[in-house]
Amino acid sequence: MSDPLRLGIAGLGTVGAGVVQILRRQGALLQARTGRSLEITAVSARSRSKDRGVALDSYAWEDDPVALAKRDDVDVFVELMGGEDGPAKAATEAAIGLGKHVITANKAMLAMHGQALAEAAEAAGVALKYEAAVAGGIPVIKALGEGLAGNEITRVMGVMNGSCNYILTRMEDAGLPYADVFAEADGLGYLEADPQLDVGGIDAAHKLAILSSLAFGTQVDFGGIELEGIERVSIEDIHAAADMGYKIKLLGVAQMTGRGLEQRMQPCLVPQTSPLGQLEGGTNMIVLEGDAVGQIVLRGPGAGAGPTASAVLSDICDIARGVRGPVFGQAASGLRAAKPALSQRAAPYYLRMALKDKPGALAKVAAVLGEAGVSIDRMRQYDHAGDSAPVLIVTHKTTRADLDHALSAMSATGVVSGAPVALRIEEV
Amino acid sequence: MSDPLRLGIAGLGTVGAGVVQILRRQGALLQARTGRSLEITAVSARSRSKDRGVALDSYAWEDDPVALAKRDDVDVFVELMGGEDGPAKAATEAAIGLGKHVITANKAMLAMHGQALAEAAEAAGVALKYEAAVAGGIPVIKALGEGLAGNEITRVMGVMNGSCNYILTRMEDAGLPYADVFAEADGLGYLEADPQLDVGGIDAAHKLAILSSLAFGTQVDFGGIELEGIERVSIEDIHAAADMGYKIKLLGVAQMTGRGLEQRMQPCLVPQTSPLGQLEGGTNMIVLEGDAVGQIVLRGPGAGAGPTASAVLSDICDIARGVRGPVFGQAASGLRAAKPALSQRAAPYYLRMALKDKPGALAKVAAVLGEAGVSIDRMRQYDHAGDSAPVLIVTHKTTRADLDHALSAMSATGVVSGAPVALRIEEV
Repeated sequence: MSDPLRLGIAGLGTVGAGVVQILRRQGALLQARTGRSLEITAVSARSRSKDRGVALDSYAWEDDPVALAKRDDVDVFVELMGGEDGPAKAATEAAIGLGKHVITANKAMLAMHGQALAEAAEAAGVALKYEAAVAGGIPVIKALGEGLAGNEITRVMGVMNGSCNYILTRMEDAGLPYADVFAEADGLGYLEADPQLDVGGIDAAHKLAILSSLAFGTQVDFGGIELEGIERVSIEDIHAAADMGYKIKLLGVAQMTGRGLEQRMQPCLVPQTSPLGQLEGGTNMIVLEGDAVGQIVLRGPGAGAGPTASAVLSDICDIARGVRGPVFGQAASGLRAAKPALSQRAAPYYLRMALKDKPGALAKVAAVLGEAGVSIDRMRQYDHAGDSAPVLIVTHKTTRADLDHALSAMSATGVVSGAPVALRIEEV
Repeated sequence: MSDPLRLGIAGLGTVGAGVVQILRRQGALLQARTGRSLEITAVSARSRSKDRGVALDSYAWEDDPVALAKRDDVDVFVELMGGEDGPAKAATEAAIGLGKHVITANKAMLAMHGQALAEAAEAAGVALKYEAAVAGGIPVIKALGEGLAGNEITRVMGVMNGSCNYILTRMEDAGLPYADVFAEADGLGYLEADPQLDVGGIDAAHKLAILSSLAFGTQVDFGGIELEGIERVSIEDIHAAADMGYKIKLLGVAQMTGRGLEQRMQPCLVPQTSPLGQLEGGTNMIVLEGDAVGQIVLRGPGAGAGPTASAVLSDICDIARGVRGPVFGQAASGLRAAKPALSQRAAPYYLRMALKDKPGALAKVAAVLGEAGVSIDRMRQYDHAGDSAPVLIVTHKTTRADLDHALSAMSATGVVSGAPVALRIEEV
């Protein structure tokens, strides 16, 4: 039997407390599986006195996570504090600098500083593992980086923020507008302290940036993501999409193209009958496509104490078993800088606009689309509400450039109130 | 850069040829990901002259896979021949005996000899890896054994034989009887040389036995599986199930209970709207449930050259990266003998029987069920066809023992022709 693996855990929120609970409850099982005793030696959090439902008195306490990371009796620093900079990053760097392995659930830190941290970890010869950073309990980092390591990855796609998916499915189920469901979700504690991280798509985009790096051998490039949140998705859009056989999802898509790396996180329409279309509530789904394997779909809880702790434990067991492996699927020094490419691939689009009550208005819209080379697959006009009428259009495949051209020409006609909503219909 | 990893590949069918193709095509990518050059040094197959669509002349040829396994220039023996005994097992044992790592796609060999091979591999300090043995391209061995290593697994479930799922969905789509679709599938080359391996549920049961061992820390116990194939599933059953909102699937379920390990591979009804119910054609789906993570669903191609080769490559990359780990999730010497337990957990059942055209026949059936403590949720009687009428019953939850009691009492009434069909309705 090898020496115990000594863990220092920084951050004792629901996830941190969940990790402590599993380590206490499943000690024998984990030892059988890894061949080592897994021991927490020290912990750190903001408040020492808070009741977390788990006994902590047998562990050393550090107020400062950096001090925790530096302790001689810590082999693995487990960072569960969050925050892209500040103490999480300082403590992670300190641990790596002293040759300790690091496990983190911190998607923001990896999305912003992943390349520098990976280079530091590889220089120090330590593991930097982050299964819990993406899609909660779904072992997607392992599936992509190890399980599909024989594939050239062709596309990564998914619903990666359970809160947004909850809001969108709840809007549809209850027929409620966005603002009401947002307030409800916020009241239930489903949203981050800064809800913009969720509904603005930022949290999901952090995850997509990490998956892209792992999939395509590029440096994490959060800034290169075309990002749009769900705030503009209306209950009318959801109903109209449903009428036409679609669901609206905050969908992340990453794909390597001849022009560079395309990364998008935005509300999209997907077929109701597709696995992504059927995803309800807070569940996450990741679709991985490779040249050899075809399509693999992974589905599971994207958040919560148990699922996220399960992912952290996977990393702990890997380290206990001696599994190292490169941080982003290959040596950090070999990762290419991502060349961001806006999507030029044609797709059908869903358009919703408010048409002014003027003779010939619909004809003008149709003409403008035709002149821009955008052809119409389906169009519906509904009753006038006040002085304008909602018009829905599903286009045939068109490029975003042609569509943008049509949309700006449309504004110039004067027959459309406000800016039309344009959502991509994704082939899944 | 480390030394090259030298591979000897035995078996050059579609999977073997697929592995060779990926290694040739993706050499640079695989080297970037593993930090080593992956080199095939020798191959072996039954016919040297057969055209496999891939150049083999730069590799040494061995007619005898045991000789291949023993070659000094082979670090990893890749067994893709199949067959539970014979050359595959002899060569695997030879490789392990000489301290070489083994990768195999051979579910039959692992289901029958997994414990002995795992003990030998651990004694020799080598890896024995088998991602390709279960569910083709889905990285389920890695997800279960590593990704969920922090969980006490509570249930493993899934559709693990694409050919059976193809037959069942094709019967429904085309409205064709079992025999016709069986012949069609056989003609298309979708079935094993011995089709009983597929339609008898044996191939799927091999896979379930492997997953059970990994999930529950028990020795592989193929013999302990309650096994029933799809041969008795009729188009009438499929239509009747559909009428009531269900699909029929050849479903594997493994669960640890207080009385022992319950393993079943049998046709079951699952809700049409569940992920398992929506699985069409040759796709596989594995559902993993753990105490911390909840439910994870994995879906993907269960067979074929590309997907299976993808799984073999995952094992090759792991070995190149230095990943070892226990064969069945913990030290083979610590795996407990499985204590097989027939399912005592109550479930609703679907019954179909042919009722003779006699006065009071239906009343007798209902009475017999009631006396055995089996209560009826729904019952439908259809028109008489000849001198008997099909009757469908969905029971409330009942144990298999009570149900069997009722079924034998039913035979004694003389109002039922032949043996009733009884299929479990699984909660998924």
